Amino acid sequence: MKQVNIGIIGYGTVGSAVGEVIRKNRQAILAASGVNLEVRKVCDLRKKKTFYPFTQNPYEIIKDPEISIVVEAIGGVNPALRYILEALKNGKHVVTSNKEVIAKHLSEILEVAQRSKVQVLFEGAVGGGIPILHALRQNLVGNRLSEVYGIVNGTTNYILSKMTEEGLEFSEALAKAKAKGYAEADPKMDIEGYDAAFKAAILAMVAFRAKVDWKKIYREGITKITFEDIKYASEIGYVVKLLAIVKRMENQLEVRVHPALVPKSHPLAAVSENFNAIYVKGYPVGELMFYGPGAGGNPTASAIISDIIAVASGSAEIFSGPLKSFPVQEVEEIKSRYYVRLQAPDRFGVLAGIAKVFAEKKVSIAAVTQKETVGNVATIVILLHEVQEKNLKAALEIIRGLPVVHRISNVIRIL
Amino acid sequence: MKQVNIGIIGYGTVGSAVGEVIRKNRQAILAASGVNLEVRKVCDLRKKKTFYPFTQNPYEIIKDPEISIVVEAIGGVNPALRYILEALKNGKHVVTSNKEVIAKHLSEILEVAQRSKVQVLFEGAVGGGIPILHALRQNLVGNRLSEVYGIVNGTTNYILSKMTEEGLEFSEALAKAKAKGYAEADPKMDIEGYDAAFKAAILAMVAFRAKVDWKKIYREGITKITFEDIKYASEIGYVVKLLAIVKRMENQLEVRVHPALVPKSHPLAAVSENFNAIYVKGYPVGELMFYGPGAGGNPTASAIISDIIAVASGSAEIFSGPLKSFPVQEVEEIKSRYYVRLQAPDRFGVLAGIAKVFAEKKVSIAAVTQKETVGNVATIVILLHEVQEKNLKAALEIIRGLPVVHRISNVIRIL
Repeated sequence: MKQVNIGIIGYGTVGSAVGEVIRKNRQAILAASGVNLEVRKVCDLRKKKTFYPFTQNPYEIIKDPEISIVVEAIGGVNPALRYILEALKNGKHVVTSNKEVIAKHLSEILEVAQRSKVQVLFEGAVGGGIPILHALRQNLVGNRLSEVYGIVNGTTNYILSKMTEEGLEFSEALAKAKAKGYAEADPKMDIEGYDAAFKAAILAMVAFRAKVDWKKIYREGITKITFEDIKYASEIGYVVKLLAIVKRMENQLEVRVHPALVPKSHPLAAVSENFNAIYVKGYPVGELMFYGPGAGGNPTASAIISDIIAVASGSAEIFSGPLKSFPVQEVEEIKSRYYVRLQAPDRFGVLAGIAKVFAEKKVSIAAVTQKETVGNVATIVILLHEVQEKNLKAALEIIRGLPVVHRISNVIRIL
Repeated sequence: MKQVNIGIIGYGTVGSAVGEVIRKNRQAILAASGVNLEVRKVCDLRKKKTFYPFTQNPYEIIKDPEISIVVEAIGGVNPALRYILEALKNGKHVVTSNKEVIAKHLSEILEVAQRSKVQVLFEGAVGGGIPILHALRQNLVGNRLSEVYGIVNGTTNYILSKMTEEGLEFSEALAKAKAKGYAEADPKMDIEGYDAAFKAAILAMVAFRAKVDWKKIYREGITKITFEDIKYASEIGYVVKLLAIVKRMENQLEVRVHPALVPKSHPLAAVSENFNAIYVKGYPVGELMFYGPGAGGNPTASAIISDIIAVASGSAEIFSGPLKSFPVQEVEEIKSRYYVRLQAPDRFGVLAGIAKVFAEKKVSIAAVTQKETVGNVATIVILLHEVQEKNLKAALEIIRGLPVVHRISNVIRIL
């Protein structure tokens, strides 16, 4: 039996779940791991009722010589980054599920950790209770990964699921997500794709040891998705999901976040409600998918405790060596298939005009369907074969100016 | 950099995949883990062409002082068990994906390993390339698991998928599986559920540290499943899957293998072809699912190499301590919901007679549908609420004897 003392900084949803789960499962954890976890102190700015010794001063944890592992559960960059760095400098291992601080500052954090010969683990930062980072780092160590992509934001998946299942528009589904507590009062971080971009950056860093500037990640949220798009997508065998995508190309990475049409036969298509799932492709393993709850106190506590035990039992490999700088491919260069919905007068020659522009710009059409006509205006849905984004943009620019086209209503990538 | 020499005993599909993947991915593995893997020798009874030094004598590997990890890739119990035990006694760690030897002899193998202070890992034994055992042992260490169940046999999943998608009968789908190389000439181990029972035993041992006698596992294959059952199940929102189920009850375990109706909304329902998926429930994580290729040389090699690296880098926890004896609940005591299909004359009073028997035996009916009538014979599908197996059996015994019932065509559990 090994006694390990921890301190928890930030005692909100996640921090208190960690404390509570350790209290309830301590015997089971000890039996399974040989580690006797003791929560020595918990800290929060605001006074909290807790089973454990409580402080409002984080340095009582950071400087406590009896604490060997600090759990950072504040969230956000400041003051979380400062506490993480000071804990590391004080020789403490750090476990966190803070996606923002890891996405933005992992390189610096790793550097300090290595100098102090301690570890930083952050399994809970992507996919909540899903052990995806551990899988990428340890269980797939024999593989050359080519792609890691998936549904990493529960809020937007809930919204898209409700739109799909109940025929809601975006704003109605968002209201529902807020009522359920799945979306925050200011939902921007989720619906505009920032949260997913942080996670995409972390997946890229862990899967490919790539130093990725999160600001360079192409990011598109779900606010433009309408029920009409979801309905047409469904008719041709697709569901709409917000994906974080990391792909290894020859000497660069594709890292991007955007909505995509996912074939109904793809395992990601069945991931509904606020669940997350990450799909991994590599040689020799082929294809794997990891599915589970992407957020919430309890699932995240599961990830944090496994990190704590990994550090405590010495079974965590140090995530070592500097991250390699890996250029992120410009979105203009990325190739994808596309769904385009546009509105045009319902008259002879319209399609011919559009098709001509696509042909001139070497954009190849896979299928065209004329959908409902209201008044004299027809909705046309066009599926495109793989095309480089810049060629598509050039074609759409011209099409937008055609007198026979009223408007391009939406353009969505196809997985 | 750490140099680690391995030997591979058994150079068929799995063994040669391990050799080949190490040859191709050695640099990537070294970069990710700091371990330089060298395949020092490979062994097979039959001469094989290989890139590595070859022997037909396994003791050239078992007794080689320069080899620290032995990969056993022979399969079956004999002589694999002998080689595993002798390698352990010679101070070598052992990595294997041999489900049969692990299901039948894990206790003995662990005992010898502990005496010799070496490790045995067997990630590839369940779910092929899916890192499920690692997840159960390390990533979910903070959890109290309640259920682990899933699709662990690719052959039967392929057969059931083809029956469902193409309207085939069992024998036709089996022929297709044989033609594809997914089913062996003698398919008994797969279609009668033996393979799944081995994996159920291993899941029970790893998830609950339970010593499970695999012979006590209730086991039912898929040979009785007809397209008619699949069709009726689909009409009421279910798919038919062969499941391995491990559930923790108060002081005992349920461990069983049988076909089951799975709701189409359950993540397991979307697992088709020869893929595997394992679903895990526990506190605090909630629900997770791990999906991937359940067999084949390359996926299994991915699992074996991650085990090798875990041992080599010291990040594998020793799967230590004796397994606890855990009584396996008698199948008679297990509660489940059921689907019952029977044939009866299409006349007044038949349903009343059947319903009366169920009521007397305290078996509660959830729904009854009369399906097609051929001649004067009607097919009746009955869905039952949760009932203890022994009560159901008693009721069915009486119903079978009713003059108004021609035959009970099938009885399938509902997940």
